[in-house]
Amino acid sequence: MSNRLDGIAASNGIAIAKAYMLVDPDLSFERENVSDVDHEIGRVHDSFSESAKELEVVKQRALETLGEEEANVFDAHITILNDPELLGAIEQKIKDEQLNAESAVTDVTDMYISMFEQMTDNAYMQERAGDVRDVTKRVMSHLLGVKLPSPALIDSKSIVVAHDLTPSDTAQLNRDYVKGFVTDIGGRTSHSAIMSRTLEIPAVVGIEHVTKDVQDGDTLIVDGIHGKVIINPTDDEVSEYNQMADQYAKEQAEWKLLKNADTQSADGRHVDIAANIGTPDDLDGVIDNGGEAIGLFRSEFLYMNSAELPTEDEQFEAYKKVVEGMDGHQVVIRTMDIGGDKHLPYLPLPEEMNPFLGYRAIRISLDRQEIFRTQLRALLRASKFGKLAIMFPMIATVDEFKEARKIYDEERSKLIDAGQSVADNIEVGMMMEIPAAVLIADKLAKYADFFSIGTNDLIQYSFAADRGNEHVSYLYQPYNPSLLRLIKQVIDSAHKEGKWAGMCGEMAGDQIAVPILLGMGLDEFSMSASSILQTRSLIKRLDTNELNSLVDSALDAETNEEVIELVHQLNL
Amino acid sequence: MSNRLDGIAASNGIAIAKAYMLVDPDLSFERENVSDVDHEIGRVHDSFSESAKELEVVKQRALETLGEEEANVFDAHITILNDPELLGAIEQKIKDEQLNAESAVTDVTDMYISMFEQMTDNAYMQERAGDVRDVTKRVMSHLLGVKLPSPALIDSKSIVVAHDLTPSDTAQLNRDYVKGFVTDIGGRTSHSAIMSRTLEIPAVVGIEHVTKDVQDGDTLIVDGIHGKVIINPTDDEVSEYNQMADQYAKEQAEWKLLKNADTQSADGRHVDIAANIGTPDDLDGVIDNGGEAIGLFRSEFLYMNSAELPTEDEQFEAYKKVVEGMDGHQVVIRTMDIGGDKHLPYLPLPEEMNPFLGYRAIRISLDRQEIFRTQLRALLRASKFGKLAIMFPMIATVDEFKEARKIYDEERSKLIDAGQSVADNIEVGMMMEIPAAVLIADKLAKYADFFSIGTNDLIQYSFAADRGNEHVSYLYQPYNPSLLRLIKQVIDSAHKEGKWAGMCGEMAGDQIAVPILLGMGLDEFSMSASSILQTRSLIKRLDTNELNSLVDSALDAETNEEVIELVHQLNL
Repeated sequence: MSNRLDGIAASNGIAIAKAYMLVDPDLSFERENVSDVDHEIGRVHDSFSESAKELEVVKQRALETLGEEEANVFDAHITILNDPELLGAIEQKIKDEQLNAESAVTDVTDMYISMFEQMTDNAYMQERAGDVRDVTKRVMSHLLGVKLPSPALIDSKSIVVAHDLTPSDTAQLNRDYVKGFVTDIGGRTSHSAIMSRTLEIPAVVGIEHVTKDVQDGDTLIVDGIHGKVIINPTDDEVSEYNQMADQYAKEQAEWKLLKNADTQSADGRHVDIAANIGTPDDLDGVIDNGGEAIGLFRSEFLYMNSAELPTEDEQFEAYKKVVEGMDGHQVVIRTMDIGGDKHLPYLPLPEEMNPFLGYRAIRISLDRQEIFRTQLRALLRASKFGKLAIMFPMIATVDEFKEARKIYDEERSKLIDAGQSVADNIEVGMMMEIPAAVLIADKLAKYADFFSIGTNDLIQYSFAADRGNEHVSYLYQPYNPSLLRLIKQVIDSAHKEGKWAGMCGEMAGDQIAVPILLGMGLDEFSMSASSILQTRSLIKRLDTNELNSLVDSALDAETNEEVIELVHQLNL
Repeated sequence: MSNRLDGIAASNGIAIAKAYMLVDPDLSFERENVSDVDHEIGRVHDSFSESAKELEVVKQRALETLGEEEANVFDAHITILNDPELLGAIEQKIKDEQLNAESAVTDVTDMYISMFEQMTDNAYMQERAGDVRDVTKRVMSHLLGVKLPSPALIDSKSIVVAHDLTPSDTAQLNRDYVKGFVTDIGGRTSHSAIMSRTLEIPAVVGIEHVTKDVQDGDTLIVDGIHGKVIINPTDDEVSEYNQMADQYAKEQAEWKLLKNADTQSADGRHVDIAANIGTPDDLDGVIDNGGEAIGLFRSEFLYMNSAELPTEDEQFEAYKKVVEGMDGHQVVIRTMDIGGDKHLPYLPLPEEMNPFLGYRAIRISLDRQEIFRTQLRALLRASKFGKLAIMFPMIATVDEFKEARKIYDEERSKLIDAGQSVADNIEVGMMMEIPAAVLIADKLAKYADFFSIGTNDLIQYSFAADRGNEHVSYLYQPYNPSLLRLIKQVIDSAHKEGKWAGMCGEMAGDQIAVPILLGMGLDEFSMSASSILQTRSLIKRLDTNELNSLVDSALDAETNEEVIELVHQLNL
């Protein structure tokens, strides 16, 4: 009999394949004293050399399928295995204390890990702690004779089943074979979910016990449209879902016809559907999906994929590529949003008890102005290759925006004085993602050229609930009237000063939210490229005149669920 | 020549005394190999026995001046010093590796600390890591021959100078001798600042380099009214400040005359001035200062000063004491606000990346209902001994309030069915400290009997800035119009439904904020007992009719500073 599980629909589509369990095996062991010390030392040597051999294979596979950068991480691991000091310390420990290999390896590597972790002023060394942890896991798996899953080694069509997917896991996944994701934790805005939409792979997240319920090799159906997973489906279920997949493919084909269409509501109101991107490489997907603009280009990739601060010229090249690639359509580039959960090995940040409420984004830029000014110069120089807009993340007060804009104006003047050519139509706006900024949006609208609502952070701060924390995930309530009132305030404040308001959070491509946002007068919807056509199709069916009463009812509702029900009643 | 430093005025009053540096000494050392192993082992033994002797003195002093509970912490330290396994491991290390004593002590204790810290599911063992760290510091100070300050040993009038004061530092301070605090970091809402107001000791915090600028034994003037510190003042300065202290004493004497006065504005509008308290022992201070009610009784002390969950009867006794002690005046008790930065050794909470945005307060209560129901029963039983109100912390949505209230109603009915007598005038309200709740205050006002604005958290979430994080302390902007608009919305929403709105955050006793809050119609001001009389005196001088234009201008301002300027222009 099949077993059905419910979770959160994270990425549209249907997939049927065998489960690949990306789950840490049980690496527990008994602490024991041994008499045959040489035997234990031999076991350590064997496990080290088997681990090194295995890592060579993983590295080679990663090189072929994923590229050099993803493969490099394994070099670091191999280097650790070849460190004579590490092996020596483990041998010494076995000799001194007559310990079994498992205990000696764990004791010594724990010491290394804690040593690295204590170097709190050196992010590079702190990251080495993670490498040692990964390598230790592999060595222990050999000592204990259990299998350690290696995402890079997946070589047949699979559904990956994991507690959660880390960025390093997803970097190692081969897109040709991974047909779907299912995870225990996470919501629509978790890393796994966003990644699955970028890769256009069906995914269901937050299923709680999926890693317990599924066995390696089970057949799984992943229904990323309705948020369902079926374990070992019956033939009837398989054919039912194959039919559904066909239907979805048909809808997708219809959406594809809208690729070059203007985004207009049924009554002829135009809005822009733009895309959120992370690197210039994402441009192809935007163009394939008929994106009308880039509503959010996260400039972090330049800082994260680098061993040191990117130079002005490196940044200029990347910005130019995107601005030029969009061929006159607007590209909104967000200045550096580092801090929070994003750290740079070469830019030590303070250790913080609550990094999401800490030193990040514009707060760093205003403090470390040399970094900010370099980025602004690169942006200004790229402006003449298309239509550029710049926005500042995490603005909380009028003072901050004015200061950031003043620095921008200074760099602009300096470049012009130096004879550089700079576009004269650059818009300078801000993210609306902090409640205090929304509350004073009427004043900010005097200074900013536009607002872009960042719903992920705005929800997190408005509800005081970390969106990555499963214990408070019930407070991720994008349709709660309290949040809708904040959004309305942003849009109204912008329009009152003749400015435009967009949204670049996950909500902009959410099919429940779109009718409300359109009804409120949102001017620009920026989303994952894979959501563009579906959203355009939805907007074409909506009449903005008929949405006024929906908006009024939603703003006057009491709960998230009531608003969902209001939208469902529209029978879209 | 004297040296003047500026900081944040944290607690009113003026003090002149010698500096006591509560600063960790330099405990750095060279890692060395030694030939005379026995000598090093002897040094370790000496440092252990000297540390134990010193701890006995500290413990005795703490027992005499502070009480048993504060003294107990030192027992834990002495136990560690007497642990033969610890001493044995250090000796072994010296023998095996020919290490000097400093290196061996550090290596071995680091291992213990990291071992304890890794027991993430056992808060008790994790706390032991802190104990080992403290003991190691003391042992190292003896090995290196440097002095380790011991707050419990202060025995002459002193100003304590510290980077920051931890709860354990303040627990050890003798109120008879400590005349003032000055610290490098912190703001008006930091632990040190709140503590200084509770103890009614002048304090200046956030002076950045005060621990560098001051030497042990320097004479200091602490001006907690204006936020100034003078190092080694001239005779003229001493007499100037003595005069100022006299003036302040005179003002205080005038305020004292208001102890039994009604709190009325110049035009006769009554408001309640209530007190925030942490334990029943704080009642005396409230009554001495003429508090008209308890606006916030933090029930956490019952959970924090206990080795296990407090029983219903233990809680009942504590609540009864406060309710009875206020003799018919209202007592607002807040249900358990655990989580965030407050942990219980016996209630393991998940490790969170952003605990302030995590599983805390009502979120725990709604999840762990057995704990919540026990507390509610204790509160209900105490209700008949006076005038009780109950409020729920960290409510973000209408659903949460309704659920909490439903559980309350169930427990109430059960008690009545069981024949218990319960007051019929208990008000059930909520803290307003999460932006989403404020935005939907009109709906919440239908269900809650009152609102109490918690400004510390509301500011932190509205500006997305951890109030304990010095890197974003510039975003603690209580007068920013964005925050004032939120406060106005709470008050208006309450009044529209015929409910009352109070404030129990630091801002309620802030002399800049009071005129604005009174002008907005706030009904209840709840503050540290030591601020009550000064605030009553201020309110008596204010005419609410004249405050309307202040409120309008403040709500229409752009920045925190503009609002401060508006209040200054009133020349109060």
